[in-house]
Amino acid sequence: MPVDEAERRARMLLSRVVEPGDVDAAALVAEHGAVALLGRLRERDAASGKPAAWAARLAAASESAILSSAESVRARYACPGDVEWPTGLDDLIRLRGGGGDRRGAAPLGLWLRGTGRLDRVVVSVSVVGARASTAYGDHVAGELAYRCGARGLVVVSGGAYGIDAAAHRGALAGDYSTVAVLAGGVDRLYPAGNAQLLREAMDGGVVVAEAGPGCAPSRSRFLVRNRLIAALGSGTVVVEAAVRSGALSTARWALDLGRPVMGVPGPVTSMMSGGVHELLRQPGPLLVTDADEVIEHVSTVGANLAPRKTGPSTLLDALDGPLRQVLEAVPSHRPAGAASIARVAGLPADRVTSILEALVTVGLVEAGPNGWVRG
Amino acid sequence: MPVDEAERRARMLLSRVVEPGDVDAAALVAEHGAVALLGRLRERDAASGKPAAWAARLAAASESAILSSAESVRARYACPGDVEWPTGLDDLIRLRGGGGDRRGAAPLGLWLRGTGRLDRVVVSVSVVGARASTAYGDHVAGELAYRCGARGLVVVSGGAYGIDAAAHRGALAGDYSTVAVLAGGVDRLYPAGNAQLLREAMDGGVVVAEAGPGCAPSRSRFLVRNRLIAALGSGTVVVEAAVRSGALSTARWALDLGRPVMGVPGPVTSMMSGGVHELLRQPGPLLVTDADEVIEHVSTVGANLAPRKTGPSTLLDALDGPLRQVLEAVPSHRPAGAASIARVAGLPADRVTSILEALVTVGLVEAGPNGWVRG
Repeated sequence: MPVDEAERRARMLLSRVVEPGDVDAAALVAEHGAVALLGRLRERDAASGKPAAWAARLAAASESAILSSAESVRARYACPGDVEWPTGLDDLIRLRGGGGDRRGAAPLGLWLRGTGRLDRVVVSVSVVGARASTAYGDHVAGELAYRCGARGLVVVSGGAYGIDAAAHRGALAGDYSTVAVLAGGVDRLYPAGNAQLLREAMDGGVVVAEAGPGCAPSRSRFLVRNRLIAALGSGTVVVEAAVRSGALSTARWALDLGRPVMGVPGPVTSMMSGGVHELLRQPGPLLVTDADEVIEHVSTVGANLAPRKTGPSTLLDALDGPLRQVLEAVPSHRPAGAASIARVAGLPADRVTSILEALVTVGLVEAGPNGWVRG
Repeated sequence: MPVDEAERRARMLLSRVVEPGDVDAAALVAEHGAVALLGRLRERDAASGKPAAWAARLAAASESAILSSAESVRARYACPGDVEWPTGLDDLIRLRGGGGDRRGAAPLGLWLRGTGRLDRVVVSVSVVGARASTAYGDHVAGELAYRCGARGLVVVSGGAYGIDAAAHRGALAGDYSTVAVLAGGVDRLYPAGNAQLLREAMDGGVVVAEAGPGCAPSRSRFLVRNRLIAALGSGTVVVEAAVRSGALSTARWALDLGRPVMGVPGPVTSMMSGGVHELLRQPGPLLVTDADEVIEHVSTVGANLAPRKTGPSTLLDALDGPLRQVLEAVPSHRPAGAASIARVAGLPADRVTSILEALVTVGLVEAGPNGWVRG
């Protein structure tokens, strides 16, 4: 169920008022709704703590300024329940019981900018790594992203220098769509040196932010942003990372979400591979050397991980909306044509064909001369 | 119990007559003894099959020639039950039930050459890899061997070009003893380009061969030789290996023996790391990046592997002879001096001290101001 217009507007405003990933705000919105939360913040002088900070920010925020900022960059806002809402983010809600910085909160909504649509993403891979990457890491990230793109996976990353940029560039080199998740607002293409790259990503892809237009990126926002990168990927690959790299926080989020986490090894003499090797020495993360291996792992989400209560056990469980409708319309034994499947699924035929092709890529559907059948 | 002199001489002769690792010959010797087997081969004309080949070889072999070859290079022969017999080789017997090329056989005896003694080896690490190694692989193998040597581990390898040579050289650079296991006889320092290196290894270390003096190395002998490298190491590290490298056969033997198998990652763009990465993508083998990590794994043999019936479950189980005597003499709570431990163990004090130091390295014993105590 999509939220109503008042709730949507209240959430847009809250995106400038509460910090991204704030679990208390998320809990209040889940219980009372964003409209009620804003009302409370406006009514009474919150004496102290977070509500006081929120009230102060709210007093300074202007809904019309936010809307005009968004409009000036043609940003849209998606809420849970919307067609474009990535249901994979809802997995974050299940993590809320965790302690410390592992507490998760699904975002109240997402600012989106670009001609791509998140609801067209069937299988994705988050490619993350060091800002201070080496030529080796850039090469591997670019190649991996390009080849994953060629196989129908959408490449998600953080738009940063180094591995992130190499991954986005690799996808764009093949004209495949890529998703960049920013720590600040979508109107702030940060870092400035990647502004042109992010503009290219918006052509066919999407730039995503939880923080509202006008918000600056900050260290804490980078860290909570990482959970979105992890949750938007069917799996996460770390290409290069020093021992205390932020990319490893994305990997930990992905592990917590029960998604496959992969690492690309490198020379043991390279500090930039040290964090990846440390990751790969833990139980869970998988060593990958090429796109085929990445696809193998994201096609069977969780299959190579110890069973986790928090995550989906198969890609099938993770599918939702139109993907699930199409998959359920594909017969198990006798192949059917796209038109027949579209009829059963109740979706337009061209949409169904592209979903079917993606489902073939991940091995859930097989294509044959007589049509489509469960893989 | 050591074998008697006649049996010992018969086994020496057999080392030129039967192929190393021949499971049928091993079974016959285990049942009837080497003397009886030689007698049978001499008595009757074996009509066909292996016994015919053995009989033909026996007819051409000269015991005195073998002995004089051995004497000319000061080679000695160790049989099971001898002080210098590496009891780790007996684990190969347990593998005999396996099928195909995974069938193992403990050697009937070992030809040894060098001033080192195998009974002084407490913890060892087999370092193996590609002949056509890269500068990266050579560097890593040498460094690893040097640092493992410094921590009291004896480095075992195959004396070949590439990674093997780099590993031997690394150990020798620190004046640490190293063991080279040859596929041919100990009088044939093969390959010729490594003859000087192997001579240096004999100064403080040992060159080992299952095949008798005069035997040439052959492809099949290289493969069965690999099982000895695996069985002589407390663990096996593969540094560089292409996808079909022989070093991977050593790793498989070590896995079958329940010993820790480790791999050093490298660039995914390097073919010489391809086999290692493939190995590391299997369950069991462990990714290592330095000597500390190697020592961590060989110090707790099998701890990181799925439980296997065939292998020892802890280093303690793998210890035998004087090592076990010393360990059992070390008190669990109140530290004791070396003299007191030597008394309890019934071994010479200097011997006990060096064993205690090795046991400290692997974490089984702790040294303190008041003496030694269980770790």
